[in-house]
Amino acid sequence: MLSAMNAHASAAVDHLLSTRARLAPPATTRPVVDPLFDFGAGQPDPGSFPYDDLVEATARVMKAEGAAALMYGEYQGYRPLRELVCHKYELFEGLKVTPENILVANGSGHALALAFSAFVDVGDPVIIEAPTFSGTLHTIRRHGPEILCVPVDAEGMVTDAVHEHLERLRREGRHCKLIYTIVNFQNPAGPCLSLRRRHELIELAHRYDTIILEDDAYNELRFEGDVQPPVYALDTGGRVIRAGTLSKILGAGVRLGWLCAPRPLVPILQMFLYGGGVSPYMSRVATYYMRDHMAEHVATLVDVYRAKRDAMLRGLWEVLEGTDVEISRPEGGFFIWIKLPSGTNPARLLERAVQARIQYSQGPAFFANGGGEQFIRLAFSYEQPARCYEGARLVAQAIREARG
Amino acid sequence: MLSAMNAHASAAVDHLLSTRARLAPPATTRPVVDPLFDFGAGQPDPGSFPYDDLVEATARVMKAEGAAALMYGEYQGYRPLRELVCHKYELFEGLKVTPENILVANGSGHALALAFSAFVDVGDPVIIEAPTFSGTLHTIRRHGPEILCVPVDAEGMVTDAVHEHLERLRREGRHCKLIYTIVNFQNPAGPCLSLRRRHELIELAHRYDTIILEDDAYNELRFEGDVQPPVYALDTGGRVIRAGTLSKILGAGVRLGWLCAPRPLVPILQMFLYGGGVSPYMSRVATYYMRDHMAEHVATLVDVYRAKRDAMLRGLWEVLEGTDVEISRPEGGFFIWIKLPSGTNPARLLERAVQARIQYSQGPAFFANGGGEQFIRLAFSYEQPARCYEGARLVAQAIREARG
Repeated sequence: MLSAMNAHASAAVDHLLSTRARLAPPATTRPVVDPLFDFGAGQPDPGSFPYDDLVEATARVMKAEGAAALMYGEYQGYRPLRELVCHKYELFEGLKVTPENILVANGSGHALALAFSAFVDVGDPVIIEAPTFSGTLHTIRRHGPEILCVPVDAEGMVTDAVHEHLERLRREGRHCKLIYTIVNFQNPAGPCLSLRRRHELIELAHRYDTIILEDDAYNELRFEGDVQPPVYALDTGGRVIRAGTLSKILGAGVRLGWLCAPRPLVPILQMFLYGGGVSPYMSRVATYYMRDHMAEHVATLVDVYRAKRDAMLRGLWEVLEGTDVEISRPEGGFFIWIKLPSGTNPARLLERAVQARIQYSQGPAFFANGGGEQFIRLAFSYEQPARCYEGARLVAQAIREARG
Repeated sequence: MLSAMNAHASAAVDHLLSTRARLAPPATTRPVVDPLFDFGAGQPDPGSFPYDDLVEATARVMKAEGAAALMYGEYQGYRPLRELVCHKYELFEGLKVTPENILVANGSGHALALAFSAFVDVGDPVIIEAPTFSGTLHTIRRHGPEILCVPVDAEGMVTDAVHEHLERLRREGRHCKLIYTIVNFQNPAGPCLSLRRRHELIELAHRYDTIILEDDAYNELRFEGDVQPPVYALDTGGRVIRAGTLSKILGAGVRLGWLCAPRPLVPILQMFLYGGGVSPYMSRVATYYMRDHMAEHVATLVDVYRAKRDAMLRGLWEVLEGTDVEISRPEGGFFIWIKLPSGTNPARLLERAVQARIQYSQGPAFFANGGGEQFIRLAFSYEQPARCYEGARLVAQAIREARG
C-alpha cells in the first residue's frame, strides 16, 4: 500500500544522507537483457558445481552439529572453515598461517570492505591499479578516498608509479593509507605481480609507512606458469592484509570469503563485521564439502577453465589476426582483457553486442579516474568451451565491424 | 610462520587506522566459560530447529535451481525470499509491501548497519533508547554519532524525551539524523511501543525532519496481547525504515535479515551492501523451507518460548518474592529484564553467577552513555523450560546473596 506513496515522498530525506551515501558511484557496464553469451561477470562454471555432494554435506552437518549451524557462532568465523583456509594456503601457495589470522566475511568483496573501513577516511589517499576490479571500485568509492591510480604491465602493478605517488604525497605532507593490488591473474588485465615487484611493494610500504591490501581470488585456478609467494608471506613487518574467497573454487552463491591479517589487526577489522559473524550454517556446509574434496575439485576446475580460456582465445584470434588488437593470455583465472584495434568505436561495438545479446564488461568500469574506453573484458568462466569459442568469434566479428 | 612476528609488528600501523576504527567499543558482558545455564545471548531454541526439513529443502533447491544457488545473485536479494518477507509481514502484521521495498542483508544486525552507514556521519546526533540492544550499540558506536538516549517505560520509547532532544538540537541549529527504536518486546526492557507513541514518533520525525529506524526481530513470537501496526505502516511520508530477520523464527545461523524501506531509499542502502549481495544458496534453502512451513513453525515456536518465559518467571518469583526486585513480563520475544533489588551488589552477583556457571547479560552493555549497573538481562530462549526454571532459581538465589 505504501510503495507508490513512499516513492514520491522519500526524496524528502535525501538531505539526511551521510557523506559516504552521497558519493557518486563508479561507471558500470550496460546489462544485456537475457544474454545468449554471458561473458560479463566472473560467474563460476555451473557444470562443475557439486550439487549432490552439497546435499550430502548438509545432511552430515545437520547430524553432527545441526544446532550449532542454526545458532549464532564465533564472530571471527567458524573455526574449521578458518582451518580449511589455512590448509588451502599451505597446499597451493606454501603459506603458513593460523586460524587466528583468518577473519571470515560474506565473500571477499565484503572482506575487502572491512579493510577499507578500518583504514580509510573520506579524503584519505589510497593507491590502486588502473584497471582494477570494478566490484572493488564500488567498495572503494563508497569509502570516499582520494584514489591514485597506477598502471599495470606484464609484471603487474607498476611499482615505480607507486613510488612516485608515495614520494609526491610525502612532499605534500600527506599519507597513503593503503595500496590495493590484485596479485594473481590481475582482474581484469591478467598479469601476475612478479616476485621482484612483490619485494619492491613491501619495501615501499615500509619506507612510506602504509598498508598493502593483497587481493587474491584465483591463485588455485592456475593453468600454467609458476606460483609466486603471496606478498603476505614475503612481508615480515605486519603490513599486509590478504583477501580470499571460496567463490571461484566452490561457488559464488555461498558468499564465503575472508581476510588473512596480522593477529593484532583481526579484532580491529572484525569491528566492522556488523551483526554477528558470517553464516554458521553456510560455513559448515561449505567446510564439510571442501574438507573432503578440495584438491580434487580444484584440479577438475583448472582443466575446465583452461579449456574455456583456450576456446575463447582461439575464437578471438581466428577473427582478429592481422589487426593491432591486444588480447591477454592469463595463466589462470576467469578473464580475458582486450585492447581494441585502433579505430574501433566502442559505442558501435556495444550496440552490435547488445543486438547479438552478448554480455561483456566495458573498459571504463575498471578505471577509477576515467579512461579505458578502448578496453573490454570477457569472462570465459561461465559459458561452456564451445560457446566460448562461438561467442568469442561473434565478439571479434563485432569488433571488426565497429571500426571508425 | 608469521603470526608471532606480525603480532609484534602490526602495532606499527595503528596510527593508520580510520576515525571509525579508533572509536571505543561499548561495554560488553563478561563471558562465562562453558556455562551450565546459558541465559546470555538471544540464541533460538535448538530443540525446534527443522533439521531434516532443511536437508530436504537443500535437495529441492539443488534439483530446481542449484546453479543459481551457487552463482552471484540479485544484489537486492533473492526475489522469492523478498516475497516471503512480504508474505510474513502481511500474515502477522497486516503490513502490505512489495519485494521492491525489501533489501536482504546478512542478518538484521547487518541490515541496521546499512541504515546507519547511509545516514550517519561521525558526530551526527542520533536518538536511541536506553536500554537498547547491545549488538546494535556496537554498530551504532562504530559509526561515531553523538548518541542521545531516551528512557523506555511500559509504553516503550518515551516520546516526550525524544521531543526534548529534538527541540534542543533545533535550538542549537543541529539535526538528528535518525531515531532508532525497538518496537516490539523491546530488547532488553520488554515493552511494546504503544499505538499512541507510534503516532507521536512519526509526527516528531516529520516535524523535526528525521528518519525512524524501526527494529523488529520478534513480533511473530507473541505469547499474548494485541499486535500493534508497524510504525512503517502508520507513516505515509517515507520516513521509516524497518529491519527484520529470520534469526528468531528459523535460526540465527542462517544470517538472513532485511530492511523494508521506501523504494527510493533501497538503492542508496544497497550501496553499502559490499561484495555482491547475500548468499543466494542460503537464501534459497531458507525460502524453500519457510515457504511451506512458516505459519505452523511459528505457532510451534510461540508455544515453546511462552513455556520458557513462564518457567523462568516462576523460578525468579519463587525466590525473589518479597524483595523490591522489578522483573519484566514480556508478551513475547526472548528476554526478561530485571532491576535488581535495592542494595544488590552487581559485582558480587557476577562473581556468584560465574562460580555457578550461569551466563547472563550485565545491564551496562545496554546503555550507550553509562549506567545500568542495577539491571541484568536473562534470555529464556535457549535453555529448555526445566532448565529455565532451575537456572532462574539459582540466579535469584545469587541475587539474594549479593546484597550489600
